[in-house]
Amino acid sequence: MTSARPEIGSSTIDSVRYAEVHKPRSELVRFPENAPLKLACGLDLKLFQIAYQTYGTLNAQKSNAVLICHALTADQHIANVHPVTRKPGWWENMVGPGRLIDTDRFFVICSNILGGCMGSTGPASFKPGTQTPYGLDFPVITISDMVDAQARLIDHLGIDNLFAVIGGSMGGMQVLEWAARYKDRVFAAMPIATAAWHSSQNIAFHEVGRQAVMADPDWCGGDYYAHDVVPKRGLAVARMAAHITYLSEEALQRKFGRSLQDRSALTFSFNADFQIESYLRYQGSSFVDRFDANSYLYITRAMDYFDMKSQYGGHLAEAFRGTKTRFCVVSFTSDWLYPTRESRAIVHALNAIAANVSFVEIESDKGHDAFLLDEPDFFKTVSGFLNAAALRRGLPASGAA
Amino acid sequence: MTSARPEIGSSTIDSVRYAEVHKPRSELVRFPENAPLKLACGLDLKLFQIAYQTYGTLNAQKSNAVLICHALTADQHIANVHPVTRKPGWWENMVGPGRLIDTDRFFVICSNILGGCMGSTGPASFKPGTQTPYGLDFPVITISDMVDAQARLIDHLGIDNLFAVIGGSMGGMQVLEWAARYKDRVFAAMPIATAAWHSSQNIAFHEVGRQAVMADPDWCGGDYYAHDVVPKRGLAVARMAAHITYLSEEALQRKFGRSLQDRSALTFSFNADFQIESYLRYQGSSFVDRFDANSYLYITRAMDYFDMKSQYGGHLAEAFRGTKTRFCVVSFTSDWLYPTRESRAIVHALNAIAANVSFVEIESDKGHDAFLLDEPDFFKTVSGFLNAAALRRGLPASGAA
Repeated sequence: MTSARPEIGSSTIDSVRYAEVHKPRSELVRFPENAPLKLACGLDLKLFQIAYQTYGTLNAQKSNAVLICHALTADQHIANVHPVTRKPGWWENMVGPGRLIDTDRFFVICSNILGGCMGSTGPASFKPGTQTPYGLDFPVITISDMVDAQARLIDHLGIDNLFAVIGGSMGGMQVLEWAARYKDRVFAAMPIATAAWHSSQNIAFHEVGRQAVMADPDWCGGDYYAHDVVPKRGLAVARMAAHITYLSEEALQRKFGRSLQDRSALTFSFNADFQIESYLRYQGSSFVDRFDANSYLYITRAMDYFDMKSQYGGHLAEAFRGTKTRFCVVSFTSDWLYPTRESRAIVHALNAIAANVSFVEIESDKGHDAFLLDEPDFFKTVSGFLNAAALRRGLPASGAA
Repeated sequence: MTSARPEIGSSTIDSVRYAEVHKPRSELVRFPENAPLKLACGLDLKLFQIAYQTYGTLNAQKSNAVLICHALTADQHIANVHPVTRKPGWWENMVGPGRLIDTDRFFVICSNILGGCMGSTGPASFKPGTQTPYGLDFPVITISDMVDAQARLIDHLGIDNLFAVIGGSMGGMQVLEWAARYKDRVFAAMPIATAAWHSSQNIAFHEVGRQAVMADPDWCGGDYYAHDVVPKRGLAVARMAAHITYLSEEALQRKFGRSLQDRSALTFSFNADFQIESYLRYQGSSFVDRFDANSYLYITRAMDYFDMKSQYGGHLAEAFRGTKTRFCVVSFTSDWLYPTRESRAIVHALNAIAANVSFVEIESDKGHDAFLLDEPDFFKTVSGFLNAAALRRGLPASGAA
């Protein structure tokens, strides 16, 4: 069948979004057919591509590279205006000239994860040699697959050893996989607000999100691309449910409480009477304008499958045995998605093999998303750890780059 | 338009379910046109009916009546086989001959709440004088409306004063409204695992559920009855999301952890690899066979609107001023839907007016649903409170009825 296919995406924003899938406004590396990615599921992913952004300059010794790993719905646009949403980068408060992760000092790299929808190969990408998106023909990938793909990018950039690998949430899972799989390539590692295995409750929330997407008739069994529709309603519901888990009850109470939205009394209707309802609806509807529904399915699945303890024979410590990496593990008191006890399990495993590890639990009422927000104690932790590691690495002090 | 309408519900189970809406296999009281229910929204609800079950015998003094108020998705079938699901009643471990709430001793009443779908008037009921379900023409109701409707039932039964009003979760909200609105009619009150106002986070979870229902094209703007469809996919997603909040992370970890469902390895697919996924899918699909989607919208809305503090000028204590009721407030340590601090707020308000109140926080890792489960300390609390209150009331001791 070679019938004419409709232009994918029915609105301008969808067109912009799908343009980023295929021809991202980012740096791009395409790996040749003879260099497929061997996936955990056993398949080879051929002709894959990784889209990435860099900030700053790699020094002559190639010793100042910082890889930042992004979370579930983020992407490579850390510190520049986002090409789809036109909003600032997701970690601009952390990364930039003179910022904590100082791009005058470090060469910062962030790549869109495998399975994503901002230019790295994922379910919305065309199958090799066709104009047909993978859809559900895309293989189910894992966090280790994402990290192996990133390692290929780091090879491509000619970097042997990363000064630091940093990431929060699913980014933190990637940090742990980097430290375990590429022991000689990571000088310092900072897993933030994360866990070494996905809990039952977290799998449960992801399953709700996936079922919400799949319940939307516009999902079309994953082949919505061919039908010029997008499962927006289902994906919005998935995002709304997930978004609650990114905040804390205290933060919701402080920000919204039971305050009404643009009205002085209850309307006795199903309108968004409460600010929290209006906020969640906005979170849902804005998300579908920038994210691919199948990517959401695949990435949540990768997180659910993440279990480093099981990968290493039931002993998490075995994942890191022999490591020389310096670790700083960070958690937030009000994070109920990845509570402090999950960070402690990582620290215990690292301690069990006498690794170089520090652990900081940051007092915050902002929930899981605290790692994206201005948290002074968190900022101090990042700068303290990076400065000490840079000194060890023989990098010039801050401001002297 | 008087065109022939299709039989409502496309499957046998739907037919059984809708039969319960209109002609429940329960006791039923229909209130006449000249005795409408005055609703909080300002409207009058005419020709409403309340379906209820009773267990045991009302004594000559009419002093042994116990009203049990049910939660969001429960109904009047406490201690008998459910007419739709054929499962045991939802509180059979608590209510029955010789049980803690002893039907040899007490006359136990439970009515389907206003807005429900098991025989009391709700959105699936026919508008008066028609064969057309209300759908979204049903008025938005409140917890106080539910309680006012129950009070009409209690009048109908010829009971002036209830020995006890007991309920968990939304049932506990009704207990609080009973104690506040009908001060002279409640001897003892036991609000369990509940709150005096619905938190921002709880509104958020409900809004996700409502959006999931409304996103289902089979919802048909609330008029699915006329289209011979049921928004099953949306309602199942809503139930799945809600169900997570009824459990605790510890309980999920203990019951399911990361155990696989009927397989020895991950399938690298979107099948229900994990037991928790399979469990949630079952919870979703079995729920839609017994519950009306619009009822779910209306009842969650009533809970979101619940705010006794705001009803009483910002001072919860004012709700109970002058009360002679004996209270026992119960919470569970791992309940994150209605955490202990919300019970404490109720106790503080009661203490502020020198009410007769005891407070018990039960150690349990079973989450919110602990009040439905066999929790020995909880059972002891219920029997201790009821026995002491019965003694005060001059009721014969247990076993002497």
